[in-house]
Amino acid sequence: MEKLEKDKSEDVEIGPDDLLPRLKDNGYDLDRVGRRRAWVERKTGAELPHIGSASWDSELMRGNIENPIGVAQVPMGVAGPVLILGQNARGLFYVPMATTEGALIRSYERGMVALTKAGGVQTALLADENQTAPAFFFDDVTQACAFPQWLEGHMAEIREAASATTRHGKLVNLKCYQTGRQVIVNFGFRTGDAQGMNMIVRATDAACQWIQNHYPGTRYFLFSGLCGEKRASGFLMTRGKGKRVTAGALLPNDVLRLYLHTTADQMFRVWQSTVVGNLQAGAIGYTGHAANGLAAIFIATGQDVANVVNSSCAVTIFEPQSEGLFVSVTLSALSVATVGGGTGLPTPREALRMMDCMGAGKASRLAEIVAATILGGEVSMGAAIASGEFVGAHERYGRNRPA
Amino acid sequence: MEKLEKDKSEDVEIGPDDLLPRLKDNGYDLDRVGRRRAWVERKTGAELPHIGSASWDSELMRGNIENPIGVAQVPMGVAGPVLILGQNARGLFYVPMATTEGALIRSYERGMVALTKAGGVQTALLADENQTAPAFFFDDVTQACAFPQWLEGHMAEIREAASATTRHGKLVNLKCYQTGRQVIVNFGFRTGDAQGMNMIVRATDAACQWIQNHYPGTRYFLFSGLCGEKRASGFLMTRGKGKRVTAGALLPNDVLRLYLHTTADQMFRVWQSTVVGNLQAGAIGYTGHAANGLAAIFIATGQDVANVVNSSCAVTIFEPQSEGLFVSVTLSALSVATVGGGTGLPTPREALRMMDCMGAGKASRLAEIVAATILGGEVSMGAAIASGEFVGAHERYGRNRPA
Amino acid sequence: MEKLEKDKSEDVEIGPDDLLPRLKDNGYDLDRVGRRRAWVERKTGAELPHIGSASWDSELMRGNIENPIGVAQVPMGVAGPVLILGQNARGLFYVPMATTEGALIRSYERGMVALTKAGGVQTALLADENQTAPAFFFDDVTQACAFPQWLEGHMAEIREAASATTRHGKLVNLKCYQTGRQVIVNFGFRTGDAQGMNMIVRATDAACQWIQNHYPGTRYFLFSGLCGEKRASGFLMTRGKGKRVTAGALLPNDVLRLYLHTTADQMFRVWQSTVVGNLQAGAIGYTGHAANGLAAIFIATGQDVANVVNSSCAVTIFEPQSEGLFVSVTLSALSVATVGGGTGLPTPREALRMMDCMGAGKASRLAEIVAATILGGEVSMGAAIASGEFVGAHERYGRNRPA
Amino acid sequence: MEKLEKDKSEDVEIGPDDLLPRLKDNGYDLDRVGRRRAWVERKTGAELPHIGSASWDSELMRGNIENPIGVAQVPMGVAGPVLILGQNARGLFYVPMATTEGALIRSYERGMVALTKAGGVQTALLADENQTAPAFFFDDVTQACAFPQWLEGHMAEIREAASATTRHGKLVNLKCYQTGRQVIVNFGFRTGDAQGMNMIVRATDAACQWIQNHYPGTRYFLFSGLCGEKRASGFLMTRGKGKRVTAGALLPNDVLRLYLHTTADQMFRVWQSTVVGNLQAGAIGYTGHAANGLAAIFIATGQDVANVVNSSCAVTIFEPQSEGLFVSVTLSALSVATVGGGTGLPTPREALRMMDCMGAGKASRLAEIVAATILGGEVSMGAAIASGEFVGAHERYGRNRPA
Repeated sequence: MEKLEKDKSEDVEIGPDDLLPRLKDNGYDLDRVGRRRAWVERKTGAELPHIGSASWDSELMRGNIENPIGVAQVPMGVAGPVLILGQNARGLFYVPMATTEGALIRSYERGMVALTKAGGVQTALLADENQTAPAFFFDDVTQACAFPQWLEGHMAEIREAASATTRHGKLVNLKCYQTGRQVIVNFGFRTGDAQGMNMIVRATDAACQWIQNHYPGTRYFLFSGLCGEKRASGFLMTRGKGKRVTAGALLPNDVLRLYLHTTADQMFRVWQSTVVGNLQAGAIGYTGHAANGLAAIFIATGQDVANVVNSSCAVTIFEPQSEGLFVSVTLSALSVATVGGGTGLPTPREALRMMDCMGAGKASRLAEIVAATILGGEVSMGAAIASGEFVGAHERYGRNRPA
Repeated sequence: MEKLEKDKSEDVEIGPDDLLPRLKDNGYDLDRVGRRRAWVERKTGAELPHIGSASWDSELMRGNIENPIGVAQVPMGVAGPVLILGQNARGLFYVPMATTEGALIRSYERGMVALTKAGGVQTALLADENQTAPAFFFDDVTQACAFPQWLEGHMAEIREAASATTRHGKLVNLKCYQTGRQVIVNFGFRTGDAQGMNMIVRATDAACQWIQNHYPGTRYFLFSGLCGEKRASGFLMTRGKGKRVTAGALLPNDVLRLYLHTTADQMFRVWQSTVVGNLQAGAIGYTGHAANGLAAIFIATGQDVANVVNSSCAVTIFEPQSEGLFVSVTLSALSVATVGGGTGLPTPREALRMMDCMGAGKASRLAEIVAATILGGEVSMGAAIASGEFVGAHERYGRNRPA
Repeated sequence: MEKLEKDKSEDVEIGPDDLLPRLKDNGYDLDRVGRRRAWVERKTGAELPHIGSASWDSELMRGNIENPIGVAQVPMGVAGPVLILGQNARGLFYVPMATTEGALIRSYERGMVALTKAGGVQTALLADENQTAPAFFFDDVTQACAFPQWLEGHMAEIREAASATTRHGKLVNLKCYQTGRQVIVNFGFRTGDAQGMNMIVRATDAACQWIQNHYPGTRYFLFSGLCGEKRASGFLMTRGKGKRVTAGALLPNDVLRLYLHTTADQMFRVWQSTVVGNLQAGAIGYTGHAANGLAAIFIATGQDVANVVNSSCAVTIFEPQSEGLFVSVTLSALSVATVGGGTGLPTPREALRMMDCMGAGKASRLAEIVAATILGGEVSMGAAIASGEFVGAHERYGRNRPA
Repeated sequence: MEKLEKDKSEDVEIGPDDLLPRLKDNGYDLDRVGRRRAWVERKTGAELPHIGSASWDSELMRGNIENPIGVAQVPMGVAGPVLILGQNARGLFYVPMATTEGALIRSYERGMVALTKAGGVQTALLADENQTAPAFFFDDVTQACAFPQWLEGHMAEIREAASATTRHGKLVNLKCYQTGRQVIVNFGFRTGDAQGMNMIVRATDAACQWIQNHYPGTRYFLFSGLCGEKRASGFLMTRGKGKRVTAGALLPNDVLRLYLHTTADQMFRVWQSTVVGNLQAGAIGYTGHAANGLAAIFIATGQDVANVVNSSCAVTIFEPQSEGLFVSVTLSALSVATVGGGTGLPTPREALRMMDCMGAGKASRLAEIVAATILGGEVSMGAAIASGEFVGAHERYGRNRPA
């Protein structure tokens, strides 16, 4: 360490000039974003012309980011069509995906077209509830034991305290998990068409403050980690978070042969073998590559991209039957929104409109489109492994072709 | 279903016109990208002017995406500075983050500055190896048993077969996991500064073909799912994937008080309580919100964003001691690159340059910067929970302030 | 394989004489048990006098085992006392443990006495419900979607069908998890003082048959694996299975010093470090060695010993505070019974009576005693690691002392 | 709490008389075991004649248990035969199982006979290494970083220090997992025919003391929890613990029909459906009910029964093919021994002899017999679900038949 300390004092002098500039009104107008960017360019020696080339008013970023310097421009393509016969989405859909992974869109497109040729994908929204889980602390086990019952007796007041902070979030249930002398309380909310995490955290905090004021001797932390936001857990697989949604279709034998160059038996063997690999890994859930499609759609449509972690807690199933292969994917904890967050920014608005998913009343529709699209990717990935075409496809479309 | 079938035939007619247009050379030049976008606008009724406003030559997208229609423009800001005293990164760093989640950058910035005021973050790259795991199939257990030993005796040839496809990837080990009559073989590679998944999958396929040609009676699938690409698993926590990297610092008591409005004891209690919540959830690893920072940096710097899932398999630790709080985060399976994939696109190049992380020889440096940044986010999140300021901060910066 | 086949035909000839003898009334009387044992002795060359030395009527084994040849005699000792101040157990308890692991009882005893000296352990039964989860299959997603709602509308009939098979099990809820075109239905039951798995599986089968008869087109398998019987899963940590029970106590600083030779700080550090090790391992839950105590009590008291797997899904917490260390353990899925299964056999009856836990109305009491005992083991194990006495203790009591 | 405190002082007075009697030489002779038992009888009001009826010299319990009062008498039966064509076990085997779960042995027997009729089970021992994982602590990340390399340079001395404590355990590798400023070191040992946990913990402690003496500034705790002893974790699935062993067989279609009343297709569908249920649960590994067979054999043969938890980290596979169903089970972390622990006690010795598994040189054989037996149980359980016979079988053999 001595040497490091010495290095540090020699190499680095930190002064007020090293802190990022604090600009008036937090600096979202074009001029101030430009000055901040110029400051970064001077400090780091990097030139940032493309980052500085947003096509829209920088003031729109207020509320979505701090210290803005411009935009990341992520390539956007379109995959599809996929024919969906769902509860909330019906028709042919073209899905915007933003990615830099070559061959990804081609892969999803192939699967989506195959599903369409097969007669379409059935989809359903199975559950829809977001949640957050503060922890309450007591002096001992006996004191903690009294708390859940008290909570149950005061649901009306707790719901009222929560609802005072939000028009859109609706507290629908509480579930207590006492662990020693602490009680984790999972607050379940309906959040309409918003992802709603900020909304329900604020509402939960208001509820917790009411509880603290009326239940002597308790303290709380707003987060316990139980709720599964942006992490992978066994809990998410059944309890879910956001939307539980499923998509399924029967791929007839001729579709498998013509469009996917494989058979039901080969596809099923890929499924079985990769399930075994995932079991050996102690993985959460099982999918071929659901995270790929989720990330690409999330970036395109202004979702909170870190939610890809919980959203990819899912199960893909390939079931052989005489007519072909029944394929499905069930996403236990899908976080998608059509209002709020980044969904109102210019490119997400356009991308959402491609699927008629912009604004209020559209989140369930979007969830089903996402599920159908992910299923397309699962089918295509499975077929590429089954038929041995995986590397070839990446040679053709991806960056790994020999120079 | 009868009704659905009926609906389908009435509502949807799918013809060749419904397929996305196939354009010459796959259509990457400005004109053809525009024609494809216009086709999508016509098909979907959405207008896509902002998606169409990339500031750079659309031909650059070739190899990173198919069916391109333009770009997603994701707000980019900058967080920092963070002082790093690492093996591969040393100095003050400003970190580009692309996100739409209000308050995220402010939160990371606060933690990074606190770490800097504390004297800086020590970082280290602990391991660096990517992997992919095909499965080989045999008729029975006894036949499968003979295979691992044969492999071991032919490492030189297998390595040669793999290396014929890549200059950069280097096969460094094989590890067999027999499960019944199949043998999953984990191929470990060094991939230099590339994420390298495509590279090693191609090399592994070449190796597998060599094996299949020389070992009678075996068949294989290229993927078993064991390797952990874009999923969360217990395997990843120890075996890793890509870079295992750690960052740690001692936050003195006065830094905790002045910059984070909390104490070592409060921070530790938040840690303990949220670990318990994660244990109750059956979560993989434990972090406060590592996925947030990872997603934001990955989008800004052109990483494969779906790798956030494996990269967030990590452990954050807060340890109280008399002088303050020792904080660390260890990412077991961080996928970051400074060459290949999306890193060469215009805005990622600029973003990487902000950290002097563009190009060959920089991936280890980037990994350590990411770890230090994630640590900043963990510290700030913990402090916000400990001090009860979480909701307030989101009110100030995020979108959830009352209109 | 050729060689193996040859070996087989040479070495092994299997005839009717190789099958175990089928004896009248399945052979539970002393004479027939003896004849079977003699048959085994002749076939295997082993002499089995001690296995043949049960002290009680072999007819008592009927319903608990098939092909009986006698008994395993497992050493039984007693640990305690532990002072319990619980909801269902109050007073000083001496706990029977059957084990062959030297030092185990001494370790539990030390922790139990320390808890007693600390003023006792508070315990509470937090939930009590067993469950089993059949899966229902449909032709497609849409058909599956209609099922959960139908179920909800027929709860009365389903409950009636289930209750026709059992006086003691009471179906209290159903929870559906649709996954593609299958619907897993988790049947939650109260089972009184029995472990109740056989009881509820039979009741669930009756309910499923009623459903199959009244809901056209469905088929089912009686088990989906979701329910967590005899396995470890994230689901069990929150959903539980059987009894969720917690035990907690404050160990004052002087008790830590005098009886456990350690300090609150050292104990907490052991906890933190071992939690980190478990997180690195991707383990389910966290305990020091709960499985040890569970196995020993389960063997002694005639529980279904394989339930140790689900019962050890638990969380141990050590929290430092100025007065000492607050310790707790929470078992999410404890399977214990005081009627049924092996509890009525001679040695289990005696063992249960040692704790006044024999028969109806005692299972909640037993659950709390188990939790308090496990907590004793956690405390003692933590202290042995903290103080460096672990190896010494095993030298003294275990089998690994140098000859 | 006030009330509780009051209750306590009223109800319970704890004095020296409440502690278990300390007897000369720890009291293993018949007389002192009897006095202790009498003391317990007096204290608890329970009569313990059957616990007091061991058929062998109580002095034999020394080293296996403390505070002995007698024995648990667990019903023992025999299942089989199973024909094994393994690396270490070859021939027809009859397997002792001690259980109180009615129908368990009949179920295993049916599967074992079916496997035998199918031509036998192939088995193989794939890996054999026990492990324990202490954690070393440093002041900061940089100091921790230097440690693994130092260890590597001193393997000879470390191995020597470890080997000074044991003739049978052999340290074969070290693997470091740095996490922040701590380094978990997984010590891998060969342990011959012993389970060896005590042996290797002692050896590891000696090695750690040598390290602490020679590497300035480090401290350690002997356990980090990483190693997976008596817990379920993702780590165990690949790293293993003790013996990784597999068993597999092809069940021809006629065997499926005649002996198991089912078909390959039905069996496979049960497998697929229950894998999905386990994935939904976030379970570790997948088996039908491996813990049942493990617990029964472990009790019969004097294994450390709590090791059922790690030993049941396993994967069962049913693969349909035209000739029938290929079935296998792979146990990643099986803990079985033929020397040491409880294996030398009278009834375990006899039980081990039934399989010619008593003493040195037999542990690999025993491991393969266990795997083949567990496979029998998996086959039988799957068939019972597939054919709908599960409940009927339990009616016939178990305790749940209507009175």
